[in-house]
Amino acid sequence: MDTHEHVAGAGGTSRIILGPNQYGKAEVRLVKVTRDTARHHLEDLSITSQLHGDFAAAHTEGNNAHVVATDTQKNTIYAFARDGVGSPEAFLLRLAEHFTSSFDWVTGGRWAAEQYFWNRINGHDHAFSKDKSEVRTAVLLVDGGRQHLVAGISGLTVLKTTGSEFHGFPRDRYTTLAETTDRILATDVTAKWRYAGTGVPDFNAVYASVRAELLDAFANTHSLALQQSMFQMGRAVLEAHPEIAEVRLSLPNNHHFPVDLEPFGLDNPGEVFFAADRPYGLIEAAVLREDSAAADPVWNTIAGFC
Amino acid sequence: MDTHEHVAGAGGTSRIILGPNQYGKAEVRLVKVTRDTARHHLEDLSITSQLHGDFAAAHTEGNNAHVVATDTQKNTIYAFARDGVGSPEAFLLRLAEHFTSSFDWVTGGRWAAEQYFWNRINGHDHAFSKDKSEVRTAVLLVDGGRQHLVAGISGLTVLKTTGSEFHGFPRDRYTTLAETTDRILATDVTAKWRYAGTGVPDFNAVYASVRAELLDAFANTHSLALQQSMFQMGRAVLEAHPEIAEVRLSLPNNHHFPVDLEPFGLDNPGEVFFAADRPYGLIEAAVLREDSAAADPVWNTIAGFC
Amino acid sequence: MDTHEHVAGAGGTSRIILGPNQYGKAEVRLVKVTRDTARHHLEDLSITSQLHGDFAAAHTEGNNAHVVATDTQKNTIYAFARDGVGSPEAFLLRLAEHFTSSFDWVTGGRWAAEQYFWNRINGHDHAFSKDKSEVRTAVLLVDGGRQHLVAGISGLTVLKTTGSEFHGFPRDRYTTLAETTDRILATDVTAKWRYAGTGVPDFNAVYASVRAELLDAFANTHSLALQQSMFQMGRAVLEAHPEIAEVRLSLPNNHHFPVDLEPFGLDNPGEVFFAADRPYGLIEAAVLREDSAAADPVWNTIAGFC
Amino acid sequence: MDTHEHVAGAGGTSRIILGPNQYGKAEVRLVKVTRDTARHHLEDLSITSQLHGDFAAAHTEGNNAHVVATDTQKNTIYAFARDGVGSPEAFLLRLAEHFTSSFDWVTGGRWAAEQYFWNRINGHDHAFSKDKSEVRTAVLLVDGGRQHLVAGISGLTVLKTTGSEFHGFPRDRYTTLAETTDRILATDVTAKWRYAGTGVPDFNAVYASVRAELLDAFANTHSLALQQSMFQMGRAVLEAHPEIAEVRLSLPNNHHFPVDLEPFGLDNPGEVFFAADRPYGLIEAAVLREDSAAADPVWNTIAGFC
Repeated sequence: MDTHEHVAGAGGTSRIILGPNQYGKAEVRLVKVTRDTARHHLEDLSITSQLHGDFAAAHTEGNNAHVVATDTQKNTIYAFARDGVGSPEAFLLRLAEHFTSSFDWVTGGRWAAEQYFWNRINGHDHAFSKDKSEVRTAVLLVDGGRQHLVAGISGLTVLKTTGSEFHGFPRDRYTTLAETTDRILATDVTAKWRYAGTGVPDFNAVYASVRAELLDAFANTHSLALQQSMFQMGRAVLEAHPEIAEVRLSLPNNHHFPVDLEPFGLDNPGEVFFAADRPYGLIEAAVLREDSAAADPVWNTIAGFC
Repeated sequence: MDTHEHVAGAGGTSRIILGPNQYGKAEVRLVKVTRDTARHHLEDLSITSQLHGDFAAAHTEGNNAHVVATDTQKNTIYAFARDGVGSPEAFLLRLAEHFTSSFDWVTGGRWAAEQYFWNRINGHDHAFSKDKSEVRTAVLLVDGGRQHLVAGISGLTVLKTTGSEFHGFPRDRYTTLAETTDRILATDVTAKWRYAGTGVPDFNAVYASVRAELLDAFANTHSLALQQSMFQMGRAVLEAHPEIAEVRLSLPNNHHFPVDLEPFGLDNPGEVFFAADRPYGLIEAAVLREDSAAADPVWNTIAGFC
Repeated sequence: MDTHEHVAGAGGTSRIILGPNQYGKAEVRLVKVTRDTARHHLEDLSITSQLHGDFAAAHTEGNNAHVVATDTQKNTIYAFARDGVGSPEAFLLRLAEHFTSSFDWVTGGRWAAEQYFWNRINGHDHAFSKDKSEVRTAVLLVDGGRQHLVAGISGLTVLKTTGSEFHGFPRDRYTTLAETTDRILATDVTAKWRYAGTGVPDFNAVYASVRAELLDAFANTHSLALQQSMFQMGRAVLEAHPEIAEVRLSLPNNHHFPVDLEPFGLDNPGEVFFAADRPYGLIEAAVLREDSAAADPVWNTIAGFC
Repeated sequence: MDTHEHVAGAGGTSRIILGPNQYGKAEVRLVKVTRDTARHHLEDLSITSQLHGDFAAAHTEGNNAHVVATDTQKNTIYAFARDGVGSPEAFLLRLAEHFTSSFDWVTGGRWAAEQYFWNRINGHDHAFSKDKSEVRTAVLLVDGGRQHLVAGISGLTVLKTTGSEFHGFPRDRYTTLAETTDRILATDVTAKWRYAGTGVPDFNAVYASVRAELLDAFANTHSLALQQSMFQMGRAVLEAHPEIAEVRLSLPNNHHFPVDLEPFGLDNPGEVFFAADRPYGLIEAAVLREDSAAADPVWNTIAGFC
């Protein structure tokens, strides 16, 4: 099979070839009820499965002999859910094992999940209300025989009404911003943490702990810059979790501008704010262990953050 | 001032006139921090102000002598917030009183608010995380000297894993749905309740109570139809709150279809579901007191629901 | 059947009753291909069907004997589409006729459609690209034996870079806005027009014409207020279309603020603008024929605009 | 300055360090009117500026001496726009040159733009309607003294009513999908193309041409797999544009399922379809010149697609 095409002309004689590729089924909405007792348990996820491997003939010839149908990938997700989900990470590991072991030409893939949370209504056995305050995420990339497992949280919106300053920044001809020693600091936390390995006994417990660490560090850091809060958040996670090698954070600075009430004969001592939509600051960084910095080139070379 | 235009031709000689109209500023994002002690309080709202009255000249001649600028309406909202918000309903009543008493030609208006909720992070004095599970709403319509006050909740997503049946419905040539005695029942609650009057001592307490009544009724009604759950939800609110004259509910039926696992040699005793996006059922009704049914023709004649 | 419940206590002895209600299936995504020749035709809609009638027993007792399943309503939509759609209005009229004539207890209903547009790719016979610049809408309300038919357009975003002024507005203690004789005027047009009757020969032709009238009136009105542009837009539609009794418009004022470049030593003669998200102005009005003002109380009493 | 922190305990004694980071202002909404003649021109963009360099002290100490404020970045964007935008790519190159040359510690950055399109209303000099059918994108990454420039298109939704087959795929125990020789093929095109260098005379002309090539290839490829259409789309771009080194495509397979009308006594010869929301197929690949495959490791190692 030849995936290459000779091209003459302006572009020279270099061949046009197929580069990296992946395909599958996205956002498979799975709700799993565990009802072995009268006290039901509920798991709610959106799962994406994409395969890597030798799919060149589909691209260049429309030959589907290797194309495990995306519908088949969807069916597999539902069938595997019959045995339970457990955690997004564990479920993705099961899917990856299945696809890479079942088809010779599937050498890896990318599996991802979002999980949504529900609370019992007054402790009810089978009635729940959805907790929309955050989404739990997980991505498993299998490449060259290695598993790269990243868990995350997204959309966790937090705000401090004080304990945030911003001053000492350089001023050039385009600088008009005033310095401040007291401002609102607000952000939507998107965090992703890379596990050093996949042998984590309880992914759900780690998730709950990381979430708590992020919230605590945000709340309790007296902030001279959102960058400082961010670094403390990442460090807190790493200090509490030796199984995590790296944390990446993407934090918008959701600006809250104090409204000038002077034209109306009123003061405004940090009480009345306009919450702006756009533009917003966007602060992103990786926090990692020094000895893991070079350990996972696939993830370290990802230029995008979250 | 003549708002009418004579039109000849196909449409006859009837004049084209200005009908009902309103204008103002929408979605004014207001964050109010109350910081008289070290324990800060946070109120987060989106407020819309629209005026009714004699604005015909602006429409027909571009004469703005009566047009209280939408920017002025925005400024007024922020200036009034300096004294605190208290509750969406109380704040809208203040705004309405101001605009209708300050400008002779303003005879009424429509004021609306959304309120967003925040929880303290571990009881922190000034750090909060946003609770996105619902939005609180309020609308105040002032028309003909009367105040029509409606409060509401939207986006409260709930689900029961059992305790829901659906059977006994008529079958015609287009009916293929199977009957069921056990299904997932899930919806996003949008409710609006009309107050009999505006003299409610504590709107926030009523909100919390109505929310609890809605959740309890949903959870504890063994449901033979989403209509039945809905009516019980509305009735529970009215029974608990004599100050409320009517409740309107708009409930999508968020379908969760059991996945057929038989092709894979598996059973599926109500455990694995596909959560569908569209289409969805849409069930809407008003529940009200018999003696208030004719009491508020403005609201009773609203054809739309929520 | 008794839809009433006696309630004692705080609310007095008034009974709690079921008020107006409707139910059905929402957002049925229908794509119809007409392929009787090699030149295919494509219709793409989202259709909602809701029934009115005697459904009290479902609410009060969970008795579904009258509940035409929402799944059946969906099936009916797809089955009827086999004969073609034609226009949203014509299709909704067919659905309404079917449901009100097939079930004794169905006295009316609300049927609604959105239509999405596609253009041929270079005139291709069967390849299309989606035109997302607007959505066509239609609502048919059948109530008390009368048909109320409203067509519309939504999301049509327009902008003028000049030819818009705003001055002469009243100034109070909360007014800070400067007057201007040259500003950007931008809005997203949502318009709904009520047909005097349903006997319109070609709804598609009317839609195209109304769209053109709205665009022309917006473009060619030198605007002293968005209200003035709006009224001219409505009037243009009524003058061109005797079969239309009323137009309702809901127009956000999408603010474009000139950026102050003076701190950077630059002028800004109406060239560089910040396009704000929120808040925005919101200008709404009905424009109608004088002799039709009282002709349709159901629609005239709708307080909401679009 | 020490960005490292010694950590003892479970995680070992490895230090926790700051990894890759970037920060700036996101989604600066810029509208530029060029009005040197009565025929105005309109450019509408959302621009993001993020800096790379030595910002460690902000993270570890809250020292902002190097932190060019995000507000300053926003001001710079507006000030530069006074001289015109031209094209997203050219504008990003100007911004990058400014920031990397003005501050010693700024070694690179990521600049991104979205551009929105407007059409003249009937050729009007200063009235426009927005064309929402697609968004133009551009990203400029400056890293290690090299410029990596990627342009793109997103949200371009296309559909073929025939000329698409899917069969010959492998069947395992989870496969239930039927083969088909005639189906609807629909997708939302997200494409990104990497320029071999930044010396492109007319980025706008290339954009228009690439868009046309993508549409033509989609329309005119008889498709045995969406992968095949995708590869032809990428190849067409590369064949027409020697200045482009690589194209990455991310194409959802927007499923349109034929509705089974047999229960209603009707056939359905490819005429009536349900357009599903989720799940959807997701097909992604890079198409590139063989001699450029290893030329840009920064971009080639990006695991994510679009």
